[in-house]
Amino acid sequence: MSQAEADALIKSTDPEHPANLIPELCASFYHLGWVTGTGGGISIRQGDKVYIAPSGVQKERIKPEHIFVLPYPRPSPEVFLRKPTQPLKESACTPLFWNAFDLRGAGSCVHTHSQHAVMATLLWEGETWEVSHLEMIKGVRKAGTDKALSYLDTVVVPIIDNTPFEEDLKDSMAEAMKKYPDAAGVLVRRHGVYVWGTDWEKAKTQTECLDYLFEVSVKMKLAGLPTKLG
Amino acid sequence: MSQAEADALIKSTDPEHPANLIPELCASFYHLGWVTGTGGGISIRQGDKVYIAPSGVQKERIKPEHIFVLPYPRPSPEVFLRKPTQPLKESACTPLFWNAFDLRGAGSCVHTHSQHAVMATLLWEGETWEVSHLEMIKGVRKAGTDKALSYLDTVVVPIIDNTPFEEDLKDSMAEAMKKYPDAAGVLVRRHGVYVWGTDWEKAKTQTECLDYLFEVSVKMKLAGLPTKLG
Amino acid sequence: MSQAEADALIKSTDPEHPANLIPELCASFYHLGWVTGTGGGISIRQGDKVYIAPSGVQKERIKPEHIFVLPYPRPSPEVFLRKPTQPLKESACTPLFWNAFDLRGAGSCVHTHSQHAVMATLLWEGETWEVSHLEMIKGVRKAGTDKALSYLDTVVVPIIDNTPFEEDLKDSMAEAMKKYPDAAGVLVRRHGVYVWGTDWEKAKTQTECLDYLFEVSVKMKLAGLPTKLG
Amino acid sequence: MSQAEADALIKSTDPEHPANLIPELCASFYHLGWVTGTGGGISIRQGDKVYIAPSGVQKERIKPEHIFVLPYPRPSPEVFLRKPTQPLKESACTPLFWNAFDLRGAGSCVHTHSQHAVMATLLWEGETWEVSHLEMIKGVRKAGTDKALSYLDTVVVPIIDNTPFEEDLKDSMAEAMKKYPDAAGVLVRRHGVYVWGTDWEKAKTQTECLDYLFEVSVKMKLAGLPTKLG
Repeated sequence: MSQAEADALIKSTDPEHPANLIPELCASFYHLGWVTGTGGGISIRQGDKVYIAPSGVQKERIKPEHIFVLPYPRPSPEVFLRKPTQPLKESACTPLFWNAFDLRGAGSCVHTHSQHAVMATLLWEGETWEVSHLEMIKGVRKAGTDKALSYLDTVVVPIIDNTPFEEDLKDSMAEAMKKYPDAAGVLVRRHGVYVWGTDWEKAKTQTECLDYLFEVSVKMKLAGLPTKLG
Repeated sequence: MSQAEADALIKSTDPEHPANLIPELCASFYHLGWVTGTGGGISIRQGDKVYIAPSGVQKERIKPEHIFVLPYPRPSPEVFLRKPTQPLKESACTPLFWNAFDLRGAGSCVHTHSQHAVMATLLWEGETWEVSHLEMIKGVRKAGTDKALSYLDTVVVPIIDNTPFEEDLKDSMAEAMKKYPDAAGVLVRRHGVYVWGTDWEKAKTQTECLDYLFEVSVKMKLAGLPTKLG
Repeated sequence: MSQAEADALIKSTDPEHPANLIPELCASFYHLGWVTGTGGGISIRQGDKVYIAPSGVQKERIKPEHIFVLPYPRPSPEVFLRKPTQPLKESACTPLFWNAFDLRGAGSCVHTHSQHAVMATLLWEGETWEVSHLEMIKGVRKAGTDKALSYLDTVVVPIIDNTPFEEDLKDSMAEAMKKYPDAAGVLVRRHGVYVWGTDWEKAKTQTECLDYLFEVSVKMKLAGLPTKLG
Repeated sequence: MSQAEADALIKSTDPEHPANLIPELCASFYHLGWVTGTGGGISIRQGDKVYIAPSGVQKERIKPEHIFVLPYPRPSPEVFLRKPTQPLKESACTPLFWNAFDLRGAGSCVHTHSQHAVMATLLWEGETWEVSHLEMIKGVRKAGTDKALSYLDTVVVPIIDNTPFEEDLKDSMAEAMKKYPDAAGVLVRRHGVYVWGTDWEKAKTQTECLDYLFEVSVKMKLAGLPTKLG
């Protein structure tokens, strides 16, 4: 494919085209404190194409021309449908986003470094973070891609240990996703969270719900309130 | 009514037309943390028409064409003056907004999932949240639609228990509104708050005042300060 | 004066004209949490004219045509150079702003309902809030209009008791300003703060410095750290 | 050099020209709470030119014409390549920014009054603030300009005592930079932080990472959690 043909994959006047959405959403996530300091981001898969932001760049300043397009499925980690002409590398989260696509059939995956997620992993010392009886649970879906949870469900998110290299989280994240097949995300201790959904809207709104729940559950725990009833 | 006639109900160049205001206000509420993850919103009633946002959508991205228009009073829950052409459902808060219209003659009702409201319902374990001697009390009106409270008044908001389905709150909310006829809102434990007013300005500013009071009263309680004097 | 002549006082293409600045600054203060729920605001005096926002309106939505212009000095509380044509009343803070003009020769006065100010008045139970040894003290001026404080100065702000009617604070505020002639502002317990300066820039930046100091001193006190050294 | 020739140094249609970037970045820092009340800012060095904002102005309202251009190296503190025509003085941080240029070869230096930095200097009473095992450490570089730290590294930032005059920090800051040659910034107790990088992007993103780490480490310490492992 010529660079012009490849670039056509990220040029669109439609504000909801992934190459336009990723910059807009990342800027919005920056103002939520989710992706400061170049960390975090969102990946969108539409059919056999995956759109991914670069690694190590200011997430609130991404432009469509910085977006990578990868084939799905992907024959090998060297294959791209489109790469930026700048000397950029695709997000180090790519193998983690792939877990969400492969194991849950997700159409989008968000990664944040939200301090609420990090504090939740520090105050919940076991293998999972769990809360119950909060309205926002209803905004989270079983497995992230299935039907919405009920107010009476306990939401459970597994917590895996962090590793020096982001890509080395791939196996433990996959393992946690298999062990907790109903989980809509995976927390990484001292690091952040991965949350996925059928499409970017559902990945984003579920990340909002879980981030809200991380935040309020941390407040509750610090105030000495129980975070799981019954 | 034809779709074109129905659509005329939500098309206006006036920025203060309800179909323009609801998207603008919901976007603003999103940035206050009141309506993330698709929850919460605002409804506006003008005479015999009620404007309502859809259920389960990103509240900061609503457009006028997504707005439902309902008759007031409403012969049955199946009657609409205007529905979006997209496959959308009206907000699940509709029966709760109706309580404010029917029981208080309100012209607008706001629903938030503000964490300050939720924390207030957790730290005030009884049937009401009450605070006194804070200037912002003066921004709240008796019954939500009557004269402004004085600095010397205690503001009282009843707290009802949450239910798995939002519409099932209708009866307990109505009961609380009757038992506390001076209350300007109803808190829902582990969920959020409903606040109403004569018009959208008064519903919004009273929600701001109550949210401020929820927040500062939670800070006071956690700091060991009394929240009600005399 | 005809309404057209009066309106000329608030019509200008200069973004730094008081009738343009007050709406812009109030919108900015709204996003800082200083003037939600219609409370608070800023007044600007330029020579013999004082520009004041209306009472009881959403402060982030003021327009130049809502601005009152009052003569300075003012023969009686009924005299206006310009009133909005809408049925609006001038800010209830007017007599308090006047204290700053009369007793300090201020050119601008800010009033906020910042929760940091309110928490400071609750955690400092005496007649003053005082902190020392914080860099931001250098952004506050002696008496609000004199030379900048040094890092080695203790900043002292008197705290007066709140009253049911805002205008009734006039005398106790004036008394506090006379008793503490070096103070750059006056805290009102359970209510907020008044801060003034030579012009709007200095009133605004001093409010920012004091609000920062209220916030950090509350955090320090809650963390068990001393807020005044030596 | 004529004023017109000098002004050419700060006139550019390129949004990434330092005279355009400094106003934009300072406005963004204002909304992060880093530079309220006229404090803090960013300096950019490109080759033999250093761009610096004025002292004592509202940092969110700087315009390109307010920018000073200084030669690097600088024969004496009186030499400017370009001064604003307004009666302004260059930032009092200038000698501190120079430390970063001289001792680390930095291309940019940020100074904030972030409350997270101040709280960190109060809760870490010794000569350094240190944390380990947090993902955001990977966004900080050895010495600020060298290779990125690993998740397994402990990030160490020296804390120096504040002085009444900002310029008097020059020697103690330089001393701390020499004693801690791997540090990417210097905290000033009760004041804020200086952080530098090879260019403005790296100075900014490292400031974001360190500010995040200050904030989360303060939360951890107040929650009784260890901030340094192993």
